[in-house]
Amino acid sequence: MNKKLQEYMEHSFDLAAVAEANIKWIRDWFEINGKGATAVIGLSGGKDSTVVATLCVKALGADRVFGVLMPDHKQSDIDVSMGVAAWLGIKHAVVDVGAATDGVKAGLASADMYDREACAIDEKLGETKQMLVNIAPRVRMTTLYAVAATMNGRVSNNSNRSERYVGYSTIFGDGVGDFSPLANLTVTEVVSIGEYLGVPDEYIHKAPSDGLTGKTDEDNFGFTYEELDTLILTGTCENEQVKQLIEERHRNNSFKLKPMPMFMKEME
Amino acid sequence: MNKKLQEYMEHSFDLAAVAEANIKWIRDWFEINGKGATAVIGLSGGKDSTVVATLCVKALGADRVFGVLMPDHKQSDIDVSMGVAAWLGIKHAVVDVGAATDGVKAGLASADMYDREACAIDEKLGETKQMLVNIAPRVRMTTLYAVAATMNGRVSNNSNRSERYVGYSTIFGDGVGDFSPLANLTVTEVVSIGEYLGVPDEYIHKAPSDGLTGKTDEDNFGFTYEELDTLILTGTCENEQVKQLIEERHRNNSFKLKPMPMFMKEME
Repeated sequence: MNKKLQEYMEHSFDLAAVAEANIKWIRDWFEINGKGATAVIGLSGGKDSTVVATLCVKALGADRVFGVLMPDHKQSDIDVSMGVAAWLGIKHAVVDVGAATDGVKAGLASADMYDREACAIDEKLGETKQMLVNIAPRVRMTTLYAVAATMNGRVSNNSNRSERYVGYSTIFGDGVGDFSPLANLTVTEVVSIGEYLGVPDEYIHKAPSDGLTGKTDEDNFGFTYEELDTLILTGTCENEQVKQLIEERHRNNSFKLKPMPMFMKEME
Repeated sequence: MNKKLQEYMEHSFDLAAVAEANIKWIRDWFEINGKGATAVIGLSGGKDSTVVATLCVKALGADRVFGVLMPDHKQSDIDVSMGVAAWLGIKHAVVDVGAATDGVKAGLASADMYDREACAIDEKLGETKQMLVNIAPRVRMTTLYAVAATMNGRVSNNSNRSERYVGYSTIFGDGVGDFSPLANLTVTEVVSIGEYLGVPDEYIHKAPSDGLTGKTDEDNFGFTYEELDTLILTGTCENEQVKQLIEERHRNNSFKLKPMPMFMKEME
């Protein structure tokens, strides 16, 4: 960890206080918004969902936390998620979303197209990488809410502040949920909270990946989480080019964090 | 129309100004958020999506509006949506979301369940009506964004103020989108704008239904849109019991309109 970030974490981040406040916040939120309800958490095997689940177990008790593992046909590291659920001691389900993602793609591939004169035309909706990448996160959101509906559940959002800052999530997919414990905590802080809560090392020091392209998040970004967190938390960046890259991503994706743009009748 | 509502519409609602401001708002929004992009609109055959599509055609031209008809296997009134697309003179696609909704349900039905000791158990996720009702709107959202990704599209949200007031939409399903022209306009105002824009009567004076249960929205509510709009726009309601019913629904569903609840590090 670089010196600036280390200084911040040592002097400006009160680990125990933040972790305990987070647990209290989850407990209070459920008290008001879902008394007796179950926290439904999509367990990816990554540190964010693991830390959220751990916080929820501390806040609500293991009986009120339910894990959902959602491979898209297969997930090479599903043993990690199974290990997390076992370590937490929570009930969990493995729901293969493969039939659903295939179904969305099949619908698109067999779309009937019509021109402006409403005549059927021999044209297809073209597949794009961006299109395919966002289907699974939205199908998982759909699945999580369906699971929640079977058990008076509330769906957790597991996004952290670092990802949110650069818009690294699918809008209305993994970017949403009913309550969001980590949205204002950077990756560095989440890892630190995970350690404080006693999460086994193997579950919090895993290089985050999107589970889709085989690349780590950092490969996709062109900068490290350490650089990103240093900029967010201290406002500094040693490399001007990296700073530009981060700020550009932030600008281009900031719409994801804003309320839906609406026409206002009184606007003029 | 009751006298209070009629008075409001005659004296406090400047139809032409609002309709033209709405068109300008759409044009300006695209100029800033999607220069040259296409509006992607889920056409249900209902008046909201029809009016949104008409506003978009006026704002952007028919070439920049794309309709998506999304039957869930079958849609008894799909001819209406086809008629709307033909009347608008826009390119459109029929994408059957049946395989996708079936896929979500199949994944849930064949979930492998584990207890707290991580032992496989012979249990199933129970199906609930609420669970089933929300799957299709979320799969449609997923499909609309996938279509948008094939054509530099921006997805419209077609919710109106009346529905939003009582939370009559699926959160992260039909309740979302990239831009929302009708969110602050009641059903009465939307109908009026539809008439102003020359939308054929048959497309705006159709009793709104959820297309799922065979009931009209008003059957589901226990009050009429006229009563609801009168309360929203004038603050009055002739029937105290109806007023209570509306306000109760509003309270219970207001979470759908709020930003996602997040833990704040500085909260204490």
